[in-house]
Amino acid sequence: MKNIRTVEMKEFVGQEVRLQGWLHNVRRMGGINFIVLRDGWGTAQAVTENEADLAPIAELSLETVIALEGIVVSSPQAPDGVELHQPRLTVITPVYEAPPIPLNKREIRAGLPTQLDHATVANRHPSRRAVFRLAAGAMAGFRQTLAARYFTEVQTPKIVASATESGANVFKLGYFGREAYLAQSPQFYKQIMVGVFGGVFEVGPVFRAEPHDTTRHVNEYVSLDVEFGFIEDHFTVMALLREVVAGIFAELTANYEPELALLEANLPVVPPQIPHIHFAEAQELILQKYGTDVRGEPDLSPQDERWLGEWAMQEYGSDFLFVTGYPMVKRPFYTHPEPQNPTYSNSFDLLFRGTELVTGGQRLHRYEDYLAALEAASLPTIPFETYLEAFQYGMPPHGGFAIGLERLLMQLLGLPNLRLATLFPRDMSRLVP
Amino acid sequence: MKNIRTVEMKEFVGQEVRLQGWLHNVRRMGGINFIVLRDGWGTAQAVTENEADLAPIAELSLETVIALEGIVVSSPQAPDGVELHQPRLTVITPVYEAPPIPLNKREIRAGLPTQLDHATVANRHPSRRAVFRLAAGAMAGFRQTLAARYFTEVQTPKIVASATESGANVFKLGYFGREAYLAQSPQFYKQIMVGVFGGVFEVGPVFRAEPHDTTRHVNEYVSLDVEFGFIEDHFTVMALLREVVAGIFAELTANYEPELALLEANLPVVPPQIPHIHFAEAQELILQKYGTDVRGEPDLSPQDERWLGEWAMQEYGSDFLFVTGYPMVKRPFYTHPEPQNPTYSNSFDLLFRGTELVTGGQRLHRYEDYLAALEAASLPTIPFETYLEAFQYGMPPHGGFAIGLERLLMQLLGLPNLRLATLFPRDMSRLVP
Repeated sequence: MKNIRTVEMKEFVGQEVRLQGWLHNVRRMGGINFIVLRDGWGTAQAVTENEADLAPIAELSLETVIALEGIVVSSPQAPDGVELHQPRLTVITPVYEAPPIPLNKREIRAGLPTQLDHATVANRHPSRRAVFRLAAGAMAGFRQTLAARYFTEVQTPKIVASATESGANVFKLGYFGREAYLAQSPQFYKQIMVGVFGGVFEVGPVFRAEPHDTTRHVNEYVSLDVEFGFIEDHFTVMALLREVVAGIFAELTANYEPELALLEANLPVVPPQIPHIHFAEAQELILQKYGTDVRGEPDLSPQDERWLGEWAMQEYGSDFLFVTGYPMVKRPFYTHPEPQNPTYSNSFDLLFRGTELVTGGQRLHRYEDYLAALEAASLPTIPFETYLEAFQYGMPPHGGFAIGLERLLMQLLGLPNLRLATLFPRDMSRLVP
Repeated sequence: MKNIRTVEMKEFVGQEVRLQGWLHNVRRMGGINFIVLRDGWGTAQAVTENEADLAPIAELSLETVIALEGIVVSSPQAPDGVELHQPRLTVITPVYEAPPIPLNKREIRAGLPTQLDHATVANRHPSRRAVFRLAAGAMAGFRQTLAARYFTEVQTPKIVASATESGANVFKLGYFGREAYLAQSPQFYKQIMVGVFGGVFEVGPVFRAEPHDTTRHVNEYVSLDVEFGFIEDHFTVMALLREVVAGIFAELTANYEPELALLEANLPVVPPQIPHIHFAEAQELILQKYGTDVRGEPDLSPQDERWLGEWAMQEYGSDFLFVTGYPMVKRPFYTHPEPQNPTYSNSFDLLFRGTELVTGGQRLHRYEDYLAALEAASLPTIPFETYLEAFQYGMPPHGGFAIGLERLLMQLLGLPNLRLATLFPRDMSRLVP
């Protein structure tokens, strides 16, 4: 007999099949018994009027691992239009106790801490699982878009000898009698690798020891990084980012319809040209339109971003807005300044529905510029010696960006907490599961 | 004028194009000057009899970043059958000093420490770059094979509260006033995720604090991990591993011919059925065929593996051999024992050309079995509490394997040191670049 997945049932109408999975639900309605099996992809129901068919699970709990054999029958009343008749149920692994979080309700009702404490089991809930299936789809869309454009995937070291951006907010570890750090980003390595491959991408963990306990911070997350050479300026980078974001959403639309439907996700349309506004103009706009004078502030506040998102929707009908030219003072030392006005930078944030989703920009590429920038930032050159070697031996104008995978999912799905977009979150108080 | 890549030149014969890259070589032969440009994908030569065409780089070094405009001309003598005529050379980023390692020789002649010290630049060498391009191809082939079989990609945490396999050889870090560890493998999380998705894979860094200074160890590497449920036993896992290995080589064959040719790589044929031998039979065979009595040893030595590899080639014409049933005493606590003889295990190693390439097997799946296994290993249950929760609430028979990406490349390419298959290796004495 053929083992099939729940999502393949429609292809086997009239045939005997075998499903394997977890006992998701049992319902009795007017003498008819429904057995719902959940596998890694969906659920399927078996129907029987014979109470004896349920005997194998009489003493057992939901989440018992089972096999169900039977005949696939079309049935308009069944959830997916098909169900299993004449079921024979066998137990693969018995479970004796109900799970700490009910998995067969439409939504998880447990509070967030309980849900996270029991993530091992809670992530089995169809609504939780759908979030992480979309994460897999976002990674696939990201890689496909870049591989199709001559980018090469790299995996760079996470144990590093010096902090990437600054000495603050970095995890320290013992390394054979020395001190080492966890990489806050692959920034230096992805730049170095532009000298090797011309354009690179990386999907991997980054580590931030920021002591922030908010709904929008975790201390380890997955970063989708890109860096490439021979650009004109940051607008070349923004054009690629537009393609990457569109590629991610295209992949989700094409292959993740059930998950998007389950989560009632409202996928945005990515305009052919994402509108952009300069940082200084954005501050002027906020004054004129919203009556708040934020001119002179070195960064945008969350409220500023919400206003700009609202304006982009009104003005351009766009969920997306690039803000360019952030002041150099708030950007890392390797940022390329704006040639005409070097207090501003050739950098950008991409706002999505009024919240920052991606940060990127053009980097310095001349060796002399790095020496000057490090001196201006009062940073020593020694810890950056091998990084600087890339520039000493020739680097083209280049730039890139980083997308936080969990941040992308949170904003796309309207989740109230970044932890709900993270498989097993790490925060100031949470190290397990 | 169209910007093109060196590898696209053949498509533009007769046209004016613009190439951008690094000044890889300059040669003068009998009044003819050859300018070789290297970009992220290959090299291209421009030819001119006019010495003045070289004026922009007269004072500059190799690795200067340049653009070359000219007409693409077919030429049987040119390395790829095409070259650029009437070149106009412009400097994008000047380099004043020759790189510490010559990049335009067929092979890097520098010793290994020098090469690793200057990996930032050395990885630009076409032979080095080809190794890491194949790494990208291996990751792509791995993912494609699994995604086509209903596996879902996951990214699991690297900062963990307890050591995965044992307390030894694990890096410790400070985590908001507590002690945490770097994950030695995603083992526990990938098993937990079988309960969510049925079958999962992960590509990510793993960290081993092993104080081994050998040609076959580094302390951070990339692990290609797989785990899936509803298996019969470890033979189901071995059958999938065969598909994955074949999928990786198929991807390399299809899309990485230039890199394989450059490195003179001899890709193996993966037999439809990889031969297998039980651990105990393997020891008998070594006694009978090679006259060394290793019976009773709990593991195979490197010499044993070489003999078995030799035998598999003679007997089956196979570069691959599965050894099954390794003694439980050498396998981690979650290993499933052999039902008929529980001193042996339902585990395997895949030998490739006489060296271990992959380790895997069936895991325990019953909650009671975990409690008994932890007790037998004198391990406390508390650190494993959230891991055990997955089994308490139902897990199917499952298993998986892990392929070391760098190990795969080393063996495939016959590299003398694992560090040469690692972009920026981490070992006992090396944290930079």
